[in-house]
Amino acid sequence: MEQGNGASRRGKRPKSGEPVVDRALSLLAAFGSEHRALGLNELSRRAGLPPSTASRLTARLLRWGALERDDHGRYVIGLRLFEVASLAPRSHGLREAALPYLEDLHEITRQHVLLAVRDGDEALLVERLSAHGAVEIAYRVGGRLPLHETGVGLVLLAAADPGYRAEWIDRLEPSSAALRLRRRLAEVRNAGLAVFERQRPAPVCSVAVPIRGRGEQVVAAVSIVVPAGARKARAYEQVVRATAMAISRGLGARGTRSHA
Amino acid sequence: MEQGNGASRRGKRPKSGEPVVDRALSLLAAFGSEHRALGLNELSRRAGLPPSTASRLTARLLRWGALERDDHGRYVIGLRLFEVASLAPRSHGLREAALPYLEDLHEITRQHVLLAVRDGDEALLVERLSAHGAVEIAYRVGGRLPLHETGVGLVLLAAADPGYRAEWIDRLEPSSAALRLRRRLAEVRNAGLAVFERQRPAPVCSVAVPIRGRGEQVVAAVSIVVPAGARKARAYEQVVRATAMAISRGLGARGTRSHA
Repeated sequence: MEQGNGASRRGKRPKSGEPVVDRALSLLAAFGSEHRALGLNELSRRAGLPPSTASRLTARLLRWGALERDDHGRYVIGLRLFEVASLAPRSHGLREAALPYLEDLHEITRQHVLLAVRDGDEALLVERLSAHGAVEIAYRVGGRLPLHETGVGLVLLAAADPGYRAEWIDRLEPSSAALRLRRRLAEVRNAGLAVFERQRPAPVCSVAVPIRGRGEQVVAAVSIVVPAGARKARAYEQVVRATAMAISRGLGARGTRSHA
Repeated sequence: MEQGNGASRRGKRPKSGEPVVDRALSLLAAFGSEHRALGLNELSRRAGLPPSTASRLTARLLRWGALERDDHGRYVIGLRLFEVASLAPRSHGLREAALPYLEDLHEITRQHVLLAVRDGDEALLVERLSAHGAVEIAYRVGGRLPLHETGVGLVLLAAADPGYRAEWIDRLEPSSAALRLRRRLAEVRNAGLAVFERQRPAPVCSVAVPIRGRGEQVVAAVSIVVPAGARKARAYEQVVRATAMAISRGLGARGTRSHA
């Protein structure tokens, strides 16, 4: 709605006020894992801005350090943004509290260890520790994962507000898939654990457990990703639970329980 | 200079164009490690903006996800910024390439492991791995360290452009300190290694080695931080060199050398 107001105002008073902020943010949003370095033309095209506007705003972002230029003169995301983002409680703050325990889990198991939070309709990967020899997975820190097709995603969706969850599930097609997911999430809530197996790109299985904060609400999920199948993965269940409980304790959860 | 123009223009044409972007960025810059959650009044005061302006711009940043509100209604840095910042080549990109080797170093030594890059006149900490039992240090990921008073800082300053380095050193007072630092940086360049000892807040010693990228330029520094003193620290010299060389190789440095 606010955007609507801004847009209609813009027609009468060109260049005024906050829409400029949205345009600057759209320049940042133009970058992606497949587009980490962009020339001005590509940047303005991806941001949906005229080149002259992109050029002017890019200069501001460069000066502040939100953008930098690489050796080829292309624009890349700058260190200053990393510095500011490191203050985000739901990513780096959580990571700081969790990292020592994630490292223990990683060292004990020599498998991939993931830490994720829910952001909107997806899971956002906050940390990933990997061994040289572990199975190949494509997840990267800062990347997004589908809620219903990953272990951490299932844990986060199972813990979401019931109204939100119902709405999310109802969007699934066909309705039999929605029904299956609804049952599955109930199991995840009961067990305080999700086991998720998939065959592509490589056959892997993940075991995920919720992390609770002060007030017992689920704030994140930790998982281990091992070569399939599920029976082998089940052997990691206890150690992942222990890791999640240690992190929850550190975050101030009181009756740290592994069951919901 | 550009900012000066913007400010003078602002007097004639209030609210026009890019200065708004600078104001929005100043809201992000208002956060710090001691100020991770801010109410609107504190936020507007720290950003140097009238509350009405801060309120309007904050709404935009909230909507985009650069800011979020915590359980107490205070503003905090949002996950969306973490997501965008994860695309920065000089922080997360470097981190992705370095992390497996940093983990090896950490597991072998059970000591703090730091990864830093130079940003302006300081070192920026891109990664830190710590053991439960290691000596207490205050450094945090995303935090800044002085170039002349840390191991990684000395390595990065020693590798900086000679003109920049000379200017940096000349700013030091008294001139005897500048002379000492100049000699020390020459030693660091020769050895391809810095050993830095300090007594406060806790007596620690770090051993730092440069990481090279494609084209052999120094792009980062890795260090290990152990309880003082330097003699004990020297025992870690070879393993830190091996780590730096492995990372450099991964980054495409050809004649990966430990000496400058």
